Amino acid sequence: MEQVNVGIIGFGTVGAGTVDNLLTNKEIIANRVGCNIVVKKIADLDLETDRGVSVPREMFTTDASELIKDSEIDIVVELMGGLGKAKEFIIAALKNGKHVVTANKALLAEHGKEIYETAEKNNVSICFEASVGGGIPVIRSLREGLSSNRIRTIMGILNGTSNYILTKMTQEGISYNQAVKEAIDLGYAEDPPDLDMDGTDAAHKLAILISLSFGTPISFDSIYREGINCLTPDDITFAKELGYCLKLLAVAKNKGDGRLEARVHPAMVSQDHIMANVHDAFNAIFIEGDFAGPTLYYGYGAGRNPTGSAVVSDIISIARHMVHDRNAPLVPPLAHTDSDKDIISIQPIDELKIPYYFRFSAVDKPGVLSKIAGVLGDNNISVSSVIQKGREVNGPVPIVMLTHEALESDVKNAMILLNRLDVLIDKTMVIRVVEEA
Amino acid sequence: MEQVNVGIIGFGTVGAGTVDNLLTNKEIIANRVGCNIVVKKIADLDLETDRGVSVPREMFTTDASELIKDSEIDIVVELMGGLGKAKEFIIAALKNGKHVVTANKALLAEHGKEIYETAEKNNVSICFEASVGGGIPVIRSLREGLSSNRIRTIMGILNGTSNYILTKMTQEGISYNQAVKEAIDLGYAEDPPDLDMDGTDAAHKLAILISLSFGTPISFDSIYREGINCLTPDDITFAKELGYCLKLLAVAKNKGDGRLEARVHPAMVSQDHIMANVHDAFNAIFIEGDFAGPTLYYGYGAGRNPTGSAVVSDIISIARHMVHDRNAPLVPPLAHTDSDKDIISIQPIDELKIPYYFRFSAVDKPGVLSKIAGVLGDNNISVSSVIQKGREVNGPVPIVMLTHEALESDVKNAMILLNRLDVLIDKTMVIRVVEEA
Repeated sequence: MEQVNVGIIGFGTVGAGTVDNLLTNKEIIANRVGCNIVVKKIADLDLETDRGVSVPREMFTTDASELIKDSEIDIVVELMGGLGKAKEFIIAALKNGKHVVTANKALLAEHGKEIYETAEKNNVSICFEASVGGGIPVIRSLREGLSSNRIRTIMGILNGTSNYILTKMTQEGISYNQAVKEAIDLGYAEDPPDLDMDGTDAAHKLAILISLSFGTPISFDSIYREGINCLTPDDITFAKELGYCLKLLAVAKNKGDGRLEARVHPAMVSQDHIMANVHDAFNAIFIEGDFAGPTLYYGYGAGRNPTGSAVVSDIISIARHMVHDRNAPLVPPLAHTDSDKDIISIQPIDELKIPYYFRFSAVDKPGVLSKIAGVLGDNNISVSSVIQKGREVNGPVPIVMLTHEALESDVKNAMILLNRLDVLIDKTMVIRVVEEA
Repeated sequence: MEQVNVGIIGFGTVGAGTVDNLLTNKEIIANRVGCNIVVKKIADLDLETDRGVSVPREMFTTDASELIKDSEIDIVVELMGGLGKAKEFIIAALKNGKHVVTANKALLAEHGKEIYETAEKNNVSICFEASVGGGIPVIRSLREGLSSNRIRTIMGILNGTSNYILTKMTQEGISYNQAVKEAIDLGYAEDPPDLDMDGTDAAHKLAILISLSFGTPISFDSIYREGINCLTPDDITFAKELGYCLKLLAVAKNKGDGRLEARVHPAMVSQDHIMANVHDAFNAIFIEGDFAGPTLYYGYGAGRNPTGSAVVSDIISIARHMVHDRNAPLVPPLAHTDSDKDIISIQPIDELKIPYYFRFSAVDKPGVLSKIAGVLGDNNISVSSVIQKGREVNGPVPIVMLTHEALESDVKNAMILLNRLDVLIDKTMVIRVVEEA
């Protein structure tokens, strides 16, 4: 099997997530790509901090140029961030014929054109899935999934920290300052969290999406920016009353007259909109194309593993491209069968274990509730909440129960016994409840 | 510029959307791919119905085998649907060395393994982005965006028609039968709509996602299926009261013990969940990977243009792959700049025209409302709703107004005048309102 060698500059949070992903899923990745992906060198000035990933000491260097010059390294991954040294390293790597993967949104937003052109001139790939939306494959969706579309509108919740603050203010009714203080104490926000709160970080990401969607490179400074620090609990309460919620939105819209709206500011979003349920540190990007119509991409916008996942997806794309001959099919369809042998069979529905909703139609007599609850209890089904409504004139009394997790086979057995109860008039309705994430 | 030739079998709704997209965005597609994509032949038995796309008569044939045998055609696009002839054509095209793009979910769900293996054996690509989730690039996200992940859970709203029915039942309190009748009358549902309502269509799509996510090919029949026809308005009302809404969910979950949950059934979903705001005919697919964490993909699950967009994205991927040498960079970063020259500049924020939210802190005196409304009216800002709360003891009275669309520069001018009003005590808050899609 062929081998593709990777060098990583910057072994902080995202660097560690990247290496962890490459090591943990080494085998399935090799099967999916058709080659081994090997981390050959890691450059970082800090060789002491434990990053929670076990890597042999001799793999480390404090000299990034060492891996840029290494003729065996195919892909250089820049995860140090910032505008100075990072740019220097990326340009040097591209000029040296290395493919580059980066998560550096500020650099791409401010110097993207120069970097893209250097890659093109040197006939190598520059990939940056991790630069926008963390673990969400939004760059790929724009470049490939929506490749036949003229993009009309982009609306993004692109900064997880500010979305977390807004969620706390909304759910707990606390002030901006209180929410920020809590977020800093919990390590969710930097101290001070200015670039997250004033819209700069979201604008960096918007600039990258704009450069992919609308072709024309724009100056980062021409994006209008307004932060969330002026918002008060009052506004959140009134928004709710009016059927809205508050989000920090990054918006780019083709006006059709040669001009583009490009702006980041707090916005009221209808509670019915799919973006309204983007809570906590999640990100979401709404993209409307002329043929695809409205689409949305949602997930963790930051964090060690999600961002690592995005970086590795870029490494895999480049490796696939390097390894497969141009006549080989696109992503061999069954290539990863072997790697997922851990699935042997489909679980029978009887063994499903989730919460259930029951709706009973009962006669209005004493003891009904206890008879029903008795049958459920006998079948290991434990009730978490009950709604009983007043009866209609001469009609049956509806009783609704939500249960804790129960086994589908127990529910079936209970239903047989419940159907025999003479206190139940109509058919009992059972619906499975989905609780998770 | 090189040229890639496409033959299309089936010129119904999706076929017309595909050809329309290829023609309408011909130039930007050529720029993005680096070659011209040309529709060379279209096969359909019905040559009479007007599909709303202007195609020269001589391009049509009633004999699909003609384009399968055509040595100039590189990519065969199968959009006729069904299990019989479609399978025959796809297998013949693959064996004849053609790349194949298809939207045929039933065929892939039931005979995917044979088709994938035939493609692999003949060293050609088989692409099927349009088979799941219409215009949503979910297949690509699974294959590429999440390529470094072990997939843990998939939860999809995969059938737009049943989601439309559930939305109507929820919003209008009507019965299942009434909602179905309305949907059929409006042309949103087939008559009878059985495959949509009984979970078969969603299960076909789930089978495809499972084959990509968990490697092991599964038998379509082993997916548990339950439809939505038993649901009543009562259940929807109780669900709401309990903080849930009702969705037809397709679920696949790796249990970690070698077994997979694979099931389609109505489910209660928390109103706070991102899936709860998937209304009408929209689809959404929630995918959790071990590194990326939870992600979600949302958009139109069906329809002429969205499905056409997905088909064309596959044609583009294959064409890019055919045209570029293996040493060429992945999707040249600036390749499509030229095609979007219609963007010339960023629109100044002053020319933004959207609705606004104002919150005033006023003294509790007669005439305040008219003074505020007067300033707004003088600046072409028209109010759509007002909330005025009772004042706190000695405190200011909060007055909230939502406006119709107004110009940002008018809002700025109004703010200057409002700040001079002595009836307003605190700073006035202004927030932009996002109304669309």
